[in-house]
Amino acid sequence: MKKNFAIVGVGLIGGSFALKCKGKGLSHRIYGVDNNPTHSVQAIGLSLVDEMTDLETAIANADVVVISIPVNALADLLPKILDLVDEQVVIDMGSTKRHIGAVVEAHPKRGRFVAAHPMWGTEYSGPTAAVENAFENKAVILCDLEKTDADAVSIAEEIFTTMQMRMIQMNANDHDLHAAYVSHIAHITSFALANTVLEKEKEDNAIFEMASAGFESTVRLAKSNPAMWTPILMHNRENVLDVLNEHISQLKKFKSCLEKENWEYLNELMSSANQIKRIIQ
Amino acid sequence: MKKNFAIVGVGLIGGSFALKCKGKGLSHRIYGVDNNPTHSVQAIGLSLVDEMTDLETAIANADVVVISIPVNALADLLPKILDLVDEQVVIDMGSTKRHIGAVVEAHPKRGRFVAAHPMWGTEYSGPTAAVENAFENKAVILCDLEKTDADAVSIAEEIFTTMQMRMIQMNANDHDLHAAYVSHIAHITSFALANTVLEKEKEDNAIFEMASAGFESTVRLAKSNPAMWTPILMHNRENVLDVLNEHISQLKKFKSCLEKENWEYLNELMSSANQIKRIIQ
Repeated sequence: MKKNFAIVGVGLIGGSFALKCKGKGLSHRIYGVDNNPTHSVQAIGLSLVDEMTDLETAIANADVVVISIPVNALADLLPKILDLVDEQVVIDMGSTKRHIGAVVEAHPKRGRFVAAHPMWGTEYSGPTAAVENAFENKAVILCDLEKTDADAVSIAEEIFTTMQMRMIQMNANDHDLHAAYVSHIAHITSFALANTVLEKEKEDNAIFEMASAGFESTVRLAKSNPAMWTPILMHNRENVLDVLNEHISQLKKFKSCLEKENWEYLNELMSSANQIKRIIQ
Repeated sequence: MKKNFAIVGVGLIGGSFALKCKGKGLSHRIYGVDNNPTHSVQAIGLSLVDEMTDLETAIANADVVVISIPVNALADLLPKILDLVDEQVVIDMGSTKRHIGAVVEAHPKRGRFVAAHPMWGTEYSGPTAAVENAFENKAVILCDLEKTDADAVSIAEEIFTTMQMRMIQMNANDHDLHAAYVSHIAHITSFALANTVLEKEKEDNAIFEMASAGFESTVRLAKSNPAMWTPILMHNRENVLDVLNEHISQLKKFKSCLEKENWEYLNELMSSANQIKRIIQ
């Protein structure tokens, strides 16, 4: 049965989610909420949502509330949204889960909340970055479902199944640990690599002319929005620090090989890295 | 006028070059040379070359000799190839240029040698990795052309122009410096990131399920062949060490922000990294 959706934050993720809802025939009417007036105008112009309105109106009219805003704003807003809901299902799209879960742990409406993290995104942001071809065949991590009411779980599962996403259950602590490895560290290395090149290479032209696909794929995440990524790294500080320390140690092994001209060990380090073929095609 | 080519090393680069020569109508006959019997059989099976033969025969029959082998083998073989040439043009495809140039600096046939580095590759290797859709619209760096005979330069330029490549002239030292920034360091970070994840994440399944496009693009270079990359890093040791030291310093800035919870500076670091948009789309 078609549902009314409130999409709080009509950017890359919220906008793509809205397009997918429409495309899959999940939505009757979609209400958008965004505190950025430019984004509100764009969301209507791009037909991501049927109307932009205030939070209270959107929630009052919705069966399902989707929150897709930076995780610091999410942590502030989620309790207020739960204050406003009756039987609505509230699904977040945040990239961290432990802190988000903690702030609503004792909320009387905790049962209406589904903690979700779709493993999809791009380095772009805002409504103009939204694409309908998102989420499909991607994973969505669902955390601590035992704290969510059974009917709310069912509705969320129906939505993600219709979107053809693979649902994976995990507790919030495990999610944040794994996310540090498969997502957060890759962003830090990419940001740092961009700064390395920008710092040392004053001749833009030479980089521009020589940069090939390998360089582009390694630094493309460095175009990601700091307003989204600072809060993610704040929320996942301990895990990210662990992984970052390990990554710096790994880089120092390469450095030591180069310094000592230990080509055999350098070859071994790269051969070990080749094992990543087990994980990515 | 169609020419006969000798392709020494019929792997990813040599095989792709051969396919492009055929596709663009540049070649009359293509002779392949490879000391790996499996690669020789594959190169014939995939019609990358017209026949596989020994080095002497290939050179004797060729107008243009293309060398596409790891840079350590290239440094060994290039003087021997120049010993065998008469008026042939010899073009290398090596990823480093300073050391290669130095080993033939005083060779009586130095004028027949064109030092080239096409800015194209993938993380795969061998004849089966060769694709015809390579090189086109990519840059090719040509080094120290003042040391090459004018007619040999013309022939190389004709080939690269027909392949629709952008030719950029640079001295070998500058090439190696820039290559350290736009290519070599990206490979090291990718190898090290793969090792970080493989070291810490014992649950392959969790990474496999959660790994998204961002992770894949950042670690894909970690699948690259160590037999190719060890010699590149040997040849460009000093430049790569400089860039690697800078990269580790940049990562330590992120680490320090996380440790000190300096979120404002973290945001600044990421905003600076966003400037990479100037260079890549």
